[in-house]
Amino acid sequence: MAQRITLPFGSDFHNHLRQGVMMETVTPLIKAGGIDTTLVMPNLTPPITTGTQAMEYKDQLQRLAPGVEFLMTLYMNPSLTPEEIKRSAELGVVAVKVYPTGVTTNSQWGVLDFKSYYPILAAMQEVDMVLCLHGECPSDPDNNICILNAEEKFLDTLRQIHVDFPRLRIVLEHATTRAAVECVKSLGNNVACTITAHHLYLTIDDWTGQPHHFCKPVAKFPDDRKALREVIREGHPRFFLGSDSAPHLRSAKQGEKPAAGVFTSPILLPLLATLFEQLGILDRLEDFVSNYGRRFYGLPSRAGTKSINLVRDELVVPESYEVLGSFQGSTAAQIVPFMSGKRLPWRLELSA
Amino acid sequence: MAQRITLPFGSDFHNHLRQGVMMETVTPLIKAGGIDTTLVMPNLTPPITTGTQAMEYKDQLQRLAPGVEFLMTLYMNPSLTPEEIKRSAELGVVAVKVYPTGVTTNSQWGVLDFKSYYPILAAMQEVDMVLCLHGECPSDPDNNICILNAEEKFLDTLRQIHVDFPRLRIVLEHATTRAAVECVKSLGNNVACTITAHHLYLTIDDWTGQPHHFCKPVAKFPDDRKALREVIREGHPRFFLGSDSAPHLRSAKQGEKPAAGVFTSPILLPLLATLFEQLGILDRLEDFVSNYGRRFYGLPSRAGTKSINLVRDELVVPESYEVLGSFQGSTAAQIVPFMSGKRLPWRLELSA
Repeated sequence: MAQRITLPFGSDFHNHLRQGVMMETVTPLIKAGGIDTTLVMPNLTPPITTGTQAMEYKDQLQRLAPGVEFLMTLYMNPSLTPEEIKRSAELGVVAVKVYPTGVTTNSQWGVLDFKSYYPILAAMQEVDMVLCLHGECPSDPDNNICILNAEEKFLDTLRQIHVDFPRLRIVLEHATTRAAVECVKSLGNNVACTITAHHLYLTIDDWTGQPHHFCKPVAKFPDDRKALREVIREGHPRFFLGSDSAPHLRSAKQGEKPAAGVFTSPILLPLLATLFEQLGILDRLEDFVSNYGRRFYGLPSRAGTKSINLVRDELVVPESYEVLGSFQGSTAAQIVPFMSGKRLPWRLELSA
Repeated sequence: MAQRITLPFGSDFHNHLRQGVMMETVTPLIKAGGIDTTLVMPNLTPPITTGTQAMEYKDQLQRLAPGVEFLMTLYMNPSLTPEEIKRSAELGVVAVKVYPTGVTTNSQWGVLDFKSYYPILAAMQEVDMVLCLHGECPSDPDNNICILNAEEKFLDTLRQIHVDFPRLRIVLEHATTRAAVECVKSLGNNVACTITAHHLYLTIDDWTGQPHHFCKPVAKFPDDRKALREVIREGHPRFFLGSDSAPHLRSAKQGEKPAAGVFTSPILLPLLATLFEQLGILDRLEDFVSNYGRRFYGLPSRAGTKSINLVRDELVVPESYEVLGSFQGSTAAQIVPFMSGKRLPWRLELSA
């Protein structure tokens, strides 16, 4: 029975770091989760739509967490041009995120018709920028599309983009279904898939009547969760960590209309080690949290480096995190993490 | 365009009237919804398990709403005997409700193994007492059973009970799926099905991120809702109103673990008239809210009587109802109804 696991720092290829006091609260917590490289989502208010904005946002984040490498993204929208893609690539932006209209937090500026974005995709393919897809169709009751099958119904769009842009690197974000896993496996080496920590834990039963487990895409059938676990067990190199860690104030989660999002960032590696051990796949942890994602994104390999230690000890997950600034002291202004108040059997030690 | 619809009072064959101050608050509101006959669920704390208890509960309810006929039920549990069934039938109890263990509010005393209850079912068949089934299997992740398919997975049990007790009248309560509708249609005349008002309105998209729309069984795919609407449009005589109106305090709905239940009782007929008109099936309203259910339960027919008027006018649904007693004045102690604060185009007039 392992008492200690040494790993490179993890890389999280899907993270929501927000703005203002929320950003100031959550950004310094990234490294506590064993992560030092993270792809930052652009769904701010207003969204990040230019390379210049992305770099300004990066500067703010960098000041809050100097030891973390922030990989920046743009928000796909009608104002984006092929020229801006090239300029952004030169500035260091690594990806463009696509939100179909209305499917999640701040997605009201999103995409309905992919064909109209083909000039952008062509430019992205040319400069080797990654396309990150929130892979859900908008709900359409007349056609029996709802949040349960929205991901599966999106997969034809994924296939079509891959056929039309075979050299474009595409990530299907936060897969939640067996259908999505099988689709990505069937496609070429330029198509990958992120999986969150919470979707490896949850099914639909866990988020009904539990707003802190509610996120988009929603966790689905036990068999879907099994498919996510199986593809990691298999060690498929195109499936890797993207936490979709998404903080909201408690007041936004426990109210008349709970916001979608699960906050996992500050506990990511203990959380994953706990589950991977239960599943008997601890030997897959390093590949999932570091090697596979870095390879797909073209980042330098860290395979075998030993920057962090997971120690068999107890981690008591905080009941909540206090949001800095003027709300401080109010329970409404807390962020409730996944596994709030629970005990995990692995604790993180940073070794430098 | 109809300006006025005259109807007999409605009969609601599934209602939760609770205990204490909650009971005192909601029971007097039944008639405001156009209902004067209602089947009362027995999932109190402790549950109603004897005919004597049921009659004591009925007395309490009757004092609160003298103009309403309360049809009483027992809670199926291991202490129930064939003798108690016969005694209860003589006292006037009309049905026994079965809750599989753990599927909804106060179901912790419920049923896992139906075969062990066969002596009770035999006695019920003999005295012509109705079996009301909460038709969901308990979740079982290892076998891919979750709240989404729990109803469909239960249908084999329904079929088996009907085969083994062909003269037993059975009601599958609050159907939410096409599978359930088709199953009940395929069975004999002793098997019927209640449908709630809210399940005719909602799909899964409507209750995610909206705790006041969360109930068990959960609303499912748009196609499932379509099946519920179709069987009413068709005028199938074994499908009728059981509102499953289930009040909870606001504090229990908007918190860390929202309780399951939607409160519709005081607005039932305006709510149903609004939807039936949208669907172009206003001519089905009387059968659905009165004739079919009364026929199945063997109550005197009221077909064509004109006790209530629905008037084309505006009903502003209250934002909330104040719970009587010591909590009064606290927003946490309010009940938030379905369609809280919304405007419905039909208002109820009682004509006597």
